[in-house]
Amino acid sequence: MNEFDSELLERAVTELSRLPGIGRKTALRLALHLLRQDPDVGVALGKAIIDLREGIRYCQVCHNISETEVCPICSNTSRDDSTICVVESVKDVMAVENTRQFKGLYHVLGGLISPIDGVGPDQLEIDSLIQRVSTGKIKEVIIALSATMEGETTAFYIFRRLEEKPVIVTQLARGLSVGNDLEYTDELTLGRSILGRQPFNDSFPS
Amino acid sequence: MNEFDSELLERAVTELSRLPGIGRKTALRLALHLLRQDPDVGVALGKAIIDLREGIRYCQVCHNISETEVCPICSNTSRDDSTICVVESVKDVMAVENTRQFKGLYHVLGGLISPIDGVGPDQLEIDSLIQRVSTGKIKEVIIALSATMEGETTAFYIFRRLEEKPVIVTQLARGLSVGNDLEYTDELTLGRSILGRQPFNDSFPS
Repeated sequence: MNEFDSELLERAVTELSRLPGIGRKTALRLALHLLRQDPDVGVALGKAIIDLREGIRYCQVCHNISETEVCPICSNTSRDDSTICVVESVKDVMAVENTRQFKGLYHVLGGLISPIDGVGPDQLEIDSLIQRVSTGKIKEVIIALSATMEGETTAFYIFRRLEEKPVIVTQLARGLSVGNDLEYTDELTLGRSILGRQPFNDSFPS
Repeated sequence: MNEFDSELLERAVTELSRLPGIGRKTALRLALHLLRQDPDVGVALGKAIIDLREGIRYCQVCHNISETEVCPICSNTSRDDSTICVVESVKDVMAVENTRQFKGLYHVLGGLISPIDGVGPDQLEIDSLIQRVSTGKIKEVIIALSATMEGETTAFYIFRRLEEKPVIVTQLARGLSVGNDLEYTDELTLGRSILGRQPFNDSFPS
């Protein structure tokens, strides 16, 4: 038979260990934990995962996750539909939403341009962004990507594609993180925070 | 609505974060990972967990996990049914099995006596062990518990309960772990390895 003398345990461990950061040892620990709990706990977890996978799709407009064809953000008429915030992933939508500083719409690229990982512009939702901007309703595109090599490459690519459209393209401010000590801030960040210095009153949340 | 603007995602994250060592951040990472994969991956995981929880029960004889009333080890007639190895948990059965040095049967206690955690002998499968020994078929009980305070307390309790039965009670040898440097071995272990010194040829696996 198999390693655990139980086909069911073997299958659960194999499936659990497909999750990122979970090896076979952790998967076994999780499976045995579930066996020690009330049966409802395991069944609820299993059902929640199946329902998640079967019930969630991607918004046709912004490609954020959604339970409906168009996500609640895109279909919310009280939001500013003339501003699009371009982010890498669904998690970034949540991060920006949590700041409560943005009332516009989103566009989820689904990744960043990365020649090393073989990800080119065609694999990302860039064409659909250009199309959204081409409707003429959009006044500003905020590029909210990581300040990494891949993030800046992708930002620059999008900037070039949007150059001839009648739209303002902005990106997240670079500067000191809140709480950072100036003395220990790296030169690049400090340099960019000087170049991008802001009028004193503009930089506080309203 | 909820934190994630999606009831399904919220439920999956809540259920995943009930697992030991998985907080809400990790749970979200896992859920979003599943959403990026082929739908089959998530559905297979969910089904494997439900099947595990609904299909696995405990062996009526040794209390190891089993898909049948009596587990494959207990019902294997080629094993030595006169020797019982007493272990704390299902994982310990796997650990002993992996050594391939034991051909007898097991008895899973389901924990250790621990006054601090409020675990007394009544909550463990100790009475059922005494009953198994009382049938008279058992010649040796090997106590294979951790060399910790709780393990030794439990071992001593079982030893006292079995004292008047016509059975040999042994416990795992205490001594240097294979690969350990004598110089860096703690005094307690070194002391017990001298008291429990073994005839030279007995200590190699056959």
